[in-house]
Amino acid sequence: MPYPQIPAFSGAPGVIRLAGHRGARGVLPENTLEGFKFALTAGVKLLELDVTATADGVVVITHNHRLTRSMVRDAAGNWLQGPEPKVSALTWAELQQYDAGGLDGSTAYGQRFPDQAFLSGVRIPRLADLLALLQQPAHQDVHLFLEIKSDPDLLADTAARQSLVQSVVDAVRTAGMEPRTVLHSFDWDLLADCQRIAPEMPASFLTQLPENDSEVGEDSSKEVNPVAGCAALDLPSRVADARGQFWCPYFEDITPESLALARDLGLLTMVWTVNEPEDIERMISLGVDAICTDYPGRVQRLLLQNGLHWLPAAER
Amino acid sequence: MPYPQIPAFSGAPGVIRLAGHRGARGVLPENTLEGFKFALTAGVKLLELDVTATADGVVVITHNHRLTRSMVRDAAGNWLQGPEPKVSALTWAELQQYDAGGLDGSTAYGQRFPDQAFLSGVRIPRLADLLALLQQPAHQDVHLFLEIKSDPDLLADTAARQSLVQSVVDAVRTAGMEPRTVLHSFDWDLLADCQRIAPEMPASFLTQLPENDSEVGEDSSKEVNPVAGCAALDLPSRVADARGQFWCPYFEDITPESLALARDLGLLTMVWTVNEPEDIERMISLGVDAICTDYPGRVQRLLLQNGLHWLPAAER
Repeated sequence: MPYPQIPAFSGAPGVIRLAGHRGARGVLPENTLEGFKFALTAGVKLLELDVTATADGVVVITHNHRLTRSMVRDAAGNWLQGPEPKVSALTWAELQQYDAGGLDGSTAYGQRFPDQAFLSGVRIPRLADLLALLQQPAHQDVHLFLEIKSDPDLLADTAARQSLVQSVVDAVRTAGMEPRTVLHSFDWDLLADCQRIAPEMPASFLTQLPENDSEVGEDSSKEVNPVAGCAALDLPSRVADARGQFWCPYFEDITPESLALARDLGLLTMVWTVNEPEDIERMISLGVDAICTDYPGRVQRLLLQNGLHWLPAAER
Repeated sequence: MPYPQIPAFSGAPGVIRLAGHRGARGVLPENTLEGFKFALTAGVKLLELDVTATADGVVVITHNHRLTRSMVRDAAGNWLQGPEPKVSALTWAELQQYDAGGLDGSTAYGQRFPDQAFLSGVRIPRLADLLALLQQPAHQDVHLFLEIKSDPDLLADTAARQSLVQSVVDAVRTAGMEPRTVLHSFDWDLLADCQRIAPEMPASFLTQLPENDSEVGEDSSKEVNPVAGCAALDLPSRVADARGQFWCPYFEDITPESLALARDLGLLTMVWTVNEPEDIERMISLGVDAICTDYPGRVQRLLLQNGLHWLPAAER
């Protein structure tokens, strides 16, 4: 396999990789430079993040398609009132008015992350801002799961979808970060575009079986997730058929059998988003390649207690 | 009261101050620059830290008098074996051999902080390193609870004790940080030296009733804590008699009555180390001036949910 980025994502005897979900969502606000910098400080070498584009074509790091009341304040510092604006309907300059530095603890989403620090004056960053950070000499060993969020309102708009992929790929190429990036999505059609437009980057296929969906307060991925009706054991073959390099199942969906099949098919397996100690322990026992978590310190601790590490000795 | 630093530590209607205990021990290794920087990123404006001195007189930031097996690795990256070396017996150069970047999860102390990130290559910092960080323009509003640890082996050595105080005060004065520093100790005799040597800095009296001591895996402060035998309600008067400006009780020791008495006596009250949500809620209900915690994000969330903030509006 010709991809230079693959080894940095691969498990090995004694090694399960650690990916920081949206930075370190349990500790600092998601998809912010502050969160990514914390993850880097904590020795996390794989960062997971979400991107979409503004009305004026700037690729920005944010998860939901709309600025969400539970996690965004207006210019006056108040939680959003009225209709939640769509990121793709705002210019980059307009987006800078909003504060993404904390969660509203009265919401279901906020209550999922009771220890997250509350900052003010935090802006939704550009993808280019994070890539610039990672070009610094100290961060040359950091790799990305770069998740492209496809807009459910534009699923039929082929030109708009391809334009988004092209904008993301352009930003990665401008920063010379292709050898450290994996393109990641729930939208398998979008991943086919990625494979065609950017064949130098591996494609990472996210899956979540509908019966296990429990991510309260977030945009659903079900509109674009083609695995409804699949048996758990079918998932790896579906990814292999789509010429994927990574299979990234929701952690409740994976079984020893499906992991073994993925391995037989030559896929790397990263599970998300694993936060509870007993779930982390189960993923360690299974022996996945990588664990994506909101709590990097917690996963580090449990890996060490199991005699494992998130980096091979030569990379520590 | 002439002390310019007092307002930054004072509660007010709608405001309970937040102090980051040893940085943010729940998140990153204690008393490290990495931990202090995280606390600053999280908007924490009061930092609590512990200092002692090396054999060659360098004031360093560390809690225990001995390098402790549960949190220090040797130059080869192994947890300390054999006798734990005393910090005051090592030179600064020797101390640089040790790694203070993580906890051993198999120890009782390590198990108290299961989410703490595990770093490598982290050195015990000098007090001067932290003071230099806080002199940066972005951090001019950050104030310190600077705890001086008195060596239980040297309680009778007046010259050594005064020399430690003088070294700490010299470091603070060299950095021009006196107007942002409070000198803090369990050792009330040492605080008397502080008041004489550095009258420009308020004195902060730590107390812990013996019956409530439950800080597993840490150096005890009981040798120097003069409140054994006191009733809880006697503590504020004892601090006032010693001409203290701050009373800092262990959170389990404080009562509405003792807090009211402290207030009547003109004392500010900071409680430590408050980590569990129900304990944080009780301290919020009491209305202390400041809460010292290993989990700043958790305290921020609970303050906000109670309609409070850790900073007055003008300081946000």
